[in-house]
Amino acid sequence: VTKRVESEGDLIETYLVPLAKAFSGAFDLQDDAALLTVPAGHDLVVTSDPVVSGVHFFADDRPEDIAWKALAVNMSDLAAKGAKPLAYMLTLALPEAPEVDWIKSFAAGLEEAQQAFGCHLAGGDTDRTPGPLAIGITAMGIVKTGTFVKRRSAEAGDHVFVTGTLGDAALGLALRRDRSHFGPRLADDARDFLIRRYLRPEPRLALRHSLQRYASAALDISDGFLKDLRRLAGTNGIEVVFAELPASNAAQNVMDVNQAAAIDAILGGGGDYELLAAVPERSAEAFASDAARTGIEVKDIGVLRPHTGIMVVGDTGTAVEAKRSGYDHLEGQR
Amino acid sequence: VTKRVESEGDLIETYLVPLAKAFSGAFDLQDDAALLTVPAGHDLVVTSDPVVSGVHFFADDRPEDIAWKALAVNMSDLAAKGAKPLAYMLTLALPEAPEVDWIKSFAAGLEEAQQAFGCHLAGGDTDRTPGPLAIGITAMGIVKTGTFVKRRSAEAGDHVFVTGTLGDAALGLALRRDRSHFGPRLADDARDFLIRRYLRPEPRLALRHSLQRYASAALDISDGFLKDLRRLAGTNGIEVVFAELPASNAAQNVMDVNQAAAIDAILGGGGDYELLAAVPERSAEAFASDAARTGIEVKDIGVLRPHTGIMVVGDTGTAVEAKRSGYDHLEGQR
Repeated sequence: VTKRVESEGDLIETYLVPLAKAFSGAFDLQDDAALLTVPAGHDLVVTSDPVVSGVHFFADDRPEDIAWKALAVNMSDLAAKGAKPLAYMLTLALPEAPEVDWIKSFAAGLEEAQQAFGCHLAGGDTDRTPGPLAIGITAMGIVKTGTFVKRRSAEAGDHVFVTGTLGDAALGLALRRDRSHFGPRLADDARDFLIRRYLRPEPRLALRHSLQRYASAALDISDGFLKDLRRLAGTNGIEVVFAELPASNAAQNVMDVNQAAAIDAILGGGGDYELLAAVPERSAEAFASDAARTGIEVKDIGVLRPHTGIMVVGDTGTAVEAKRSGYDHLEGQR
Repeated sequence: VTKRVESEGDLIETYLVPLAKAFSGAFDLQDDAALLTVPAGHDLVVTSDPVVSGVHFFADDRPEDIAWKALAVNMSDLAAKGAKPLAYMLTLALPEAPEVDWIKSFAAGLEEAQQAFGCHLAGGDTDRTPGPLAIGITAMGIVKTGTFVKRRSAEAGDHVFVTGTLGDAALGLALRRDRSHFGPRLADDARDFLIRRYLRPEPRLALRHSLQRYASAALDISDGFLKDLRRLAGTNGIEVVFAELPASNAAQNVMDVNQAAAIDAILGGGGDYELLAAVPERSAEAFASDAARTGIEVKDIGVLRPHTGIMVVGDTGTAVEAKRSGYDHLEGQR
């Protein structure tokens, strides 16, 4: 017999209150609202990114991974703005009373993520829904006043940097759907790596000081490299050499097996939660070496030029075409 | 032919950006996160209360009313804490691209509610969902440091006040389901009044100064009077005379027609979003007259006594029983 949580009170008391214990403004989740103190000389940075079963994760993903991703995608927005995580609100819309084992693992995943990201549960709401499981998180962080890193303030001449590697999550999604995808020539550890990149995005929080110091603009790549690069570039353009885009060994492994899929994932695949940052020429070197000290790899992929488009150049100097240009949340297309 | 919104970009640009125009930290909804400045000497109060189609509202409610309620239920939490509204995050989970007429009216409802409550859209997210329409709002307000009104800090001897009238929303819900409910003896304008009370809760924001000054504890009645009174009372008890509980003329009209339904709604019906406040004996009179000046009626319904239960006394001195004791969000029962 599957044991389920008995009541809303039990769910909150047993599984959620421990996540809020260390945050006094959460009042043990027993109040109508949370109370946050923003230190003098700081501002609050707020982002809301919900995840829904069947859209952003699979219903049978491990609950620890679902919890991690739900918090990580919000932390990624804070990271892009140079903000230090503080607390988050959690709304759970549950299709049925959750199984005790499921919610226990889910709470453990949140606990692990909280510790990794340095934040606490501050409040929220639990409710039944006729729809699929939905996890709504609003994350709050702080920045020193005047250091918020905007998205649309890049200028011509700025160097564009990208963190980590591109396309892994989209390839991991294909493998999460069907582990045998890409056929027998793809190594088993490459499959594991890519699936993990899909399930466990790593918000680049350690980069926040480098961004604050040197970046003129930044955003996280949630909807695909080209789509988010276009957002960063604004009215400017950029020429990017495809071969210079950072790709993991596993993605290069896919490239050997199915070039079109790899190109597509690198240019248009969402879910990597890497960062794109624009850095003025004079600070480009300092940014790169500052970032290197955080343990996060950053790659200079080109310079913003006024009044041009975005061009991706292939090995032979020809333009590379990506079938998909990114994720539209309303269309739900990938 | 029904005209639908074409893309996520169109939805945001055309209907949501205007709601964020006056709030500079919203960056026209073109950034990853919102930036909020908390004035010196103040703290931030945060609450997250989503509403879901088929749970908190009907799919065919007027979109203006859906929008109003979505924001109002969050503002009610801020009101109970003595907070002044500042901004809110909005996440829309849409089962399909919304009809242009629908989203236009929805945005108009948000605009009306923003103006009534004094806050702005600061950010959020739009996404497709395989489930029903869900509107996630996280509301943020401010309080002077040290004036946050907690829920669990009432003490024995405190007077308990309730705002407005009780049970209207639950009766309105029954009438929203079936306008002919309660039969021909219920007047038409009573039906209209009760349905409106269900559709358009009025957060008691004007009471915040009175609460800050005099209340030892407060919360909003979202889950039913008895359930929320129990939360306010904590380890204390209270004897309440049923006939002294504030009821609207419309609810008294229902009482004449169907006494059991009216008692049930007054004691256990959720959705009124009135406030319960505990006020120390020495301040009870001052609170009542201060509140009266805000135009919000408050009623002193009894005094908290240590180590007793909660008792509702009927006309003949006997205890009144409510069939339902309030709303459990996990059970989904009313």
